[in-house]
Amino acid sequence: MGPVDDVKTRVKVNIYGSEYIVKANESPEYIQKLAFMVDKKMQQIGNRNRTMAGSKVAVLTALNLADELCKLREDYEGLLKLIEEAK
Amino acid sequence: MGPVDDVKTRVKVNIYGSEYIVKANESPEYIQKLAFMVDKKMQQIGNRNRTMAGSKVAVLTALNLADELCKLREDYEGLLKLIEEAK
Repeated sequence: MGPVDDVKTRVKVNIYGSEYIVKANESPEYIQKLAFMVDKKMQQIGNRNRTMAGSKVAVLTALNLADELCKLREDYEGLLKLIEEAK
Repeated sequence: MGPVDDVKTRVKVNIYGSEYIVKANESPEYIQKLAFMVDKKMQQIGNRNRTMAGSKVAVLTALNLADELCKLREDYEGLLKLIEEAK
């Protein structure tokens, strides 16, 4: 999601029962896909901890996504290394 | 971050000025690293929108991480395809 200056798209999304206007240099379909991913993960975390505040659910969701990102980065670098070695 | 049943580590982290106890099957160092990533991103988003509620900053942070994850997944699949084709 790029800097605020060169914003092209504004999309209204619903995440965990709240509406957000997302501004980004991406297609509306892609932004909806991201919102769906975040909403799904927040629902999963919220369902396991029904008394948890929405802000905490969002922070734990961000932590989960950061975890997936770190693990995928490691896998990606592993593949790059394989390709380098095969050259 | 695995299911609640087989939790091994409990780590206290500070994210965007709030403390959280994170329970996960990961090392404390790795959990701190994830917390640092999320905190940094929340600070960046919060600095651009100083009146924004913390819960909204967290949701936008999760959307940003979902965006990075989707893009990296695409790159990863591209590499896998390259490797398949080279076989």
